[in-house]
Order: sequence, then structure tokens, then C-alpha cells
Amino acid sequence: MADHELDVVGIGNAIVDVIARADDATIAEHGLPKGAMTLIDADQAHDLYNAMGPAQESSGGSVANTMAGLASLGGRGAFIGKVRNDQLGGIFRHDLRATGIAFDSPSAEQGPPTARCLVFVTPDAQRTMATFLGISTALAPEDLDTDLIQRAKITYLEGYLWDAPPAKEAFVRAAKAAHDAGKRVALSLSDPFCVERHRSSFRELVEGHVDILFANEHEITSLYEVDTFDEALQHVRGHCEVAALTRSEKGSLVLSGDEVHVVDAEPISELVDTTGAGDMYAAGFLHGFTQGYSLYDCGRAGAVSAAEVVTHVGARPQTPLHKLVAREHEDRHRHHG
Amino acid sequence: MADHELDVVGIGNAIVDVIARADDATIAEHGLPKGAMTLIDADQAHDLYNAMGPAQESSGGSVANTMAGLASLGGRGAFIGKVRNDQLGGIFRHDLRATGIAFDSPSAEQGPPTARCLVFVTPDAQRTMATFLGISTALAPEDLDTDLIQRAKITYLEGYLWDAPPAKEAFVRAAKAAHDAGKRVALSLSDPFCVERHRSSFRELVEGHVDILFANEHEITSLYEVDTFDEALQHVRGHCEVAALTRSEKGSLVLSGDEVHVVDAEPISELVDTTGAGDMYAAGFLHGFTQGYSLYDCGRAGAVSAAEVVTHVGARPQTPLHKLVAREHEDRHRHHG
Repeated sequence: MADHELDVVGIGNAIVDVIARADDATIAEHGLPKGAMTLIDADQAHDLYNAMGPAQESSGGSVANTMAGLASLGGRGAFIGKVRNDQLGGIFRHDLRATGIAFDSPSAEQGPPTARCLVFVTPDAQRTMATFLGISTALAPEDLDTDLIQRAKITYLEGYLWDAPPAKEAFVRAAKAAHDAGKRVALSLSDPFCVERHRSSFRELVEGHVDILFANEHEITSLYEVDTFDEALQHVRGHCEVAALTRSEKGSLVLSGDEVHVVDAEPISELVDTTGAGDMYAAGFLHGFTQGYSLYDCGRAGAVSAAEVVTHVGARPQTPLHKLVAREHEDRHRHHG
Repeated sequence: MADHELDVVGIGNAIVDVIARADDATIAEHGLPKGAMTLIDADQAHDLYNAMGPAQESSGGSVANTMAGLASLGGRGAFIGKVRNDQLGGIFRHDLRATGIAFDSPSAEQGPPTARCLVFVTPDAQRTMATFLGISTALAPEDLDTDLIQRAKITYLEGYLWDAPPAKEAFVRAAKAAHDAGKRVALSLSDPFCVERHRSSFRELVEGHVDILFANEHEITSLYEVDTFDEALQHVRGHCEVAALTRSEKGSLVLSGDEVHVVDAEPISELVDTTGAGDMYAAGFLHGFTQGYSLYDCGRAGAVSAAEVVTHVGARPQTPLHKLVAREHEDRHRHHG
């Protein structure tokens, strides 16, 4: 990859999903709130994993998913995140590289193991998640490849990084490095609980340090502590260069200065698993942005990418997204006039 | 009603709906495009009415429906339109006045009969309409009560008036009278076919002569000959003081200068008959506007009013809208913070 050819560098938690079927009793027995994501420590992770039935592993993590989507769209990306030199760390690296994303952060030789998210799928198709962040939260400023960041058009960060002090410091340092090189910083607010934990910091970030903001309706209303989507958008307007606010089947709204775009959701045949929808929207949008698409077309690329990932189990695309986006774009312009 | 207490004066076609059940064969036999609205002449109206089974009459007309909605919301309104001194004219006047709307335009002593819309309801619940505009299109500048117009905060006009030269002249005269008195002019684009017939005139109107524009997605995309709602909104922004663009279950978008509001549709228990949805949205919005509501609250009042009318057959409200709007407003503010 030539020095000038990097579209997006993503910085986030490197997590492997460990997925198994479970009954409601198992979930209740371990005190997990059904349908939600709980953070757990090493001991809990150990006990829960022992209680889990036969499982399947697949690489995950919000920003890492987005990077996998970017690669599927034909974008050139790299990932920075922290894994241990253990088996899950090997799985994470293999899977992300296999999508075409560069991942050259060295594996830690000591410290907690690679992060994992234990996913319990109940017979009603709900997902109950328990995440042990392990070494991923040890990401620190010295783990940043500043050269990589400064070569990328966009540095994409997840709000989850804010949960650990060293990762938070790395976040701030990365954003500064990107801006120093005249490049853009994008942020996903990650989830409403994360916003709850870091509200005032996130507001400050959105005010002055983020160029492209991704948030869903729950996150943006939580950020500004308002009841309606409309109130939230009045708050966010003008505070960052671009805000892309997603609303599931209600589509998304893209704001930039005085510009406003209404982007419909892409119709889907069957909703199977919403995991990764926000991650893929960000992938489509960021890819479009780095390719010079109009903001509306960025939103459409996001909508089409998200629509693919919700029609199957798993948070990474199973159909090459670049084909789907190209087809939608052609269809739209063929009907024109 | 004291001179200074008029909220809205509506000017539109005075039409009585004549509704009967029919089978598909009857509709086909008379060459009516199923599910659509066709304009018919006096002879056709005569023949069709003879072929119609036992029918029910109820007063209609787009602006007149909106005025009935305004009254149900507690607003003070008057209507200007043209009826003959015949039975349908009597029905129209009775029904509109019974809602609380002033209607003092004198009945014509000669000319074509009062307008009627023959509505054929097929077993699949679709409505096929044939409209004979009769004397309604003879509305002319001399039929305008300029004093009434200049006393109203808003003069509300329908695009359908543009179909007849004298009514069109009355439209322009009314708008000028309102503006001369420092009052506002609102317009509904009426329907996509109406926009098709008068596209360039309507664009001119929206550019300089209309303060508050109502249009649904089909109408606004037709007005600007674009494929997507997003393109249409880019065209309309900044061209009139306020534009309220409705999208059925996708809610509405309210634009005013740099301001943008996203208003969700009000959830409904069961969709029975969409007739009158746009008319009631306009009623709620205009009522809110004259009462000094925020633009978002105007949109919400429109959404709540439209939701009532689609849950039953008929284009006028059956539950006092002011109660529904007040309840929604209280609910929203009770949950606040």
C-alpha cells in the first residue's frame, strides 16, 4: 500500500465474539440482563465460558467491524487495537487481515488475555452479551502508529475507548495527530450506556474535536438528554462538520452546516440479526466520504451496507458490499429523469 | 366573532362526496381508473350517478376538510367557496357550519350545480373517485370577501383552484390581499396530477407568493421533477418561509430557513381510510402556527390530527382533535427530563 493511499485508520477494541446457544435459565443463573451487553471481569469470563455450550468464534469489535465493511466496499484501511499473543488474538488478527485490512499492532507478550464477548443466543433469537475487555483497554498512546494515522484521510474512533484511561489518552492523541496532518477525525458514540458514562466528555469531543459523528437515535438523545430525535438534531447541528444520525428502519439524517439530507433505509427481505448495522452504516458512509461521494450518496452507501448485514447472523458482511452499493447507485441513476 | 379573532380563512372547491359501494365491473364499465380521481363533466356525472347504488352524502373538498379540522382543534376559521342554491349546496353549507366554520359566500342562483365527487368503494376497500367540479370552479375574484381575508392570520389555498381560470385569478387576488394586510399565505399542492398540470406556475408561487407550503412526497418530487425526497427538499429549502413536507408513515419534515425539524408520524391502531390525512395534517399545523406553537409542535399537531382521520372512513374528524393534540402534548412534556 503506497503511503498516500490509506482511506481510513480505525482505532478500537479488538474483540473476539464467542457465540453459543443457551436457554433462559442459564442466562438468569449468571445474572445477565437479557438482550443487553454487560461488562465482566476475568473471573466472571472464566466462569461464564465454562458454563457455555459448544461455541463459535468470530472476530468482532465495533470499529473492527466497520473496517471489515470498508474493505468489502473496496476501501483501503488499517486497524490499531490491542490483542495478546494468545489464540483469540491470533483469530482476531487472521480474520481482520483476511478481509483486506492491515493490522500490524504487535501482540502484547504479557497482561490480560485478548478481549472476548460471550454471546448467548436464546431460542427467541435474542442476544445476551457479556464482554470481558481484557487487554484491549490497555491500548495506550505508545501503541499508536502516528505515521499510519497521518497517512489516512480519516481516523475513526469508537466511544468505547473512553472506558479505560490509557485508551482514552490514546484516543485524544490520535485525534490530535490526525488534525495536525490536516486529516479528519470520525467518532461513533458506540452505545447509549457508553454515552451515559461519558456524556460531558463526549459533548466536548463533538464540539471541537470530531469532524464526522455517527450516532443512532438512542445515543444522540442521550448525549443531549432530550426526549425527541428532533431536539437532539437541533443540538448537534453546526457542532461538527458532518453528523450522520441513524434511526434503524426510519433511515438516517445527514447534517453538515446548513445542509440537511434525508436518507431512507434500504428495504430488506427479512430482519435476522441487527448486530453490526451501525458499524456497516459507518463503513458505507466513510467509504463514500473518502471517495468524494455527495453526503446523500454517503448516506445511501451506509444504508445499503447496513441492510446487508441485518439479513444474516453476524456483524460482518457476507456479500461484497461494493457490488451492492454500485448496483443501488446504478438503479437510482437509471431511473433518473 | 370579533374582527381580530380569525385564525385561518380557507379558499377552495366546495364539494360534496357521494359515496356508494360498487363492484369492479361497474367501475370498469364506466372507464374509471381504479383507485384514482378522474375529473368528469355534467353528462358523465349524471350517467354515473344513475348507475350508482344507494349512496351517502357528506361534505368534502380539501381546504374545506382542513377548515373542519381547524374548528375541531379549537381554531377560528372561515371558508370561501362556490355552491349553487341546490340540495347539495345546502348540505355542504350545513355540514361546514355545523363544525363551527363560518361560510357566508352566497349561493349562486344560476350556473352549473354544486360540485360532487362520486366515490365508488369496491369490496377491497379501495376508493375510485369521479369529480364533477360544477360551479365550484366558477369562483372568481368578485366572490372574495377581502375584508375576511385581511382579518385572518393565514389565508389557506388549494392547488386545485389553479384548474379553472377564474378561480386561479381569485387565488392570486386573495394572496395579494392577505400580503397587503401583512398576513400569511399558505398553499397545499393538492395532488401530483395537479402539480403536473401547473408545474411552472406552482414553482413561481412557491418562490415568491407562498409563506407556508404543504406538500406530500409525490407532490414535491413532481414539482421539482426529481427522483428522491432528499433532492426535492434541497430545492424547496429557502424558497418559502415554511415548508411542511409529509411522507405518510415516515412522518414529516418541516423546513424554515436554516431550521429543519424531523417529525415522526403518530402511531395508529389500524389504517382504515387515508382520505383526508393530508388535509388534517394541514389543519393541525395551521392551528399550531396561528397559536404560536414551535414549528416542531405544529408538525406534531399535524401528525396527531392526521392519525385520527385515517382510523375511520371519511375525511373529517370524528373525535375532537383539540383533545388528542392536548393529550399528546401533555404526554410528551410529562416524560421530559
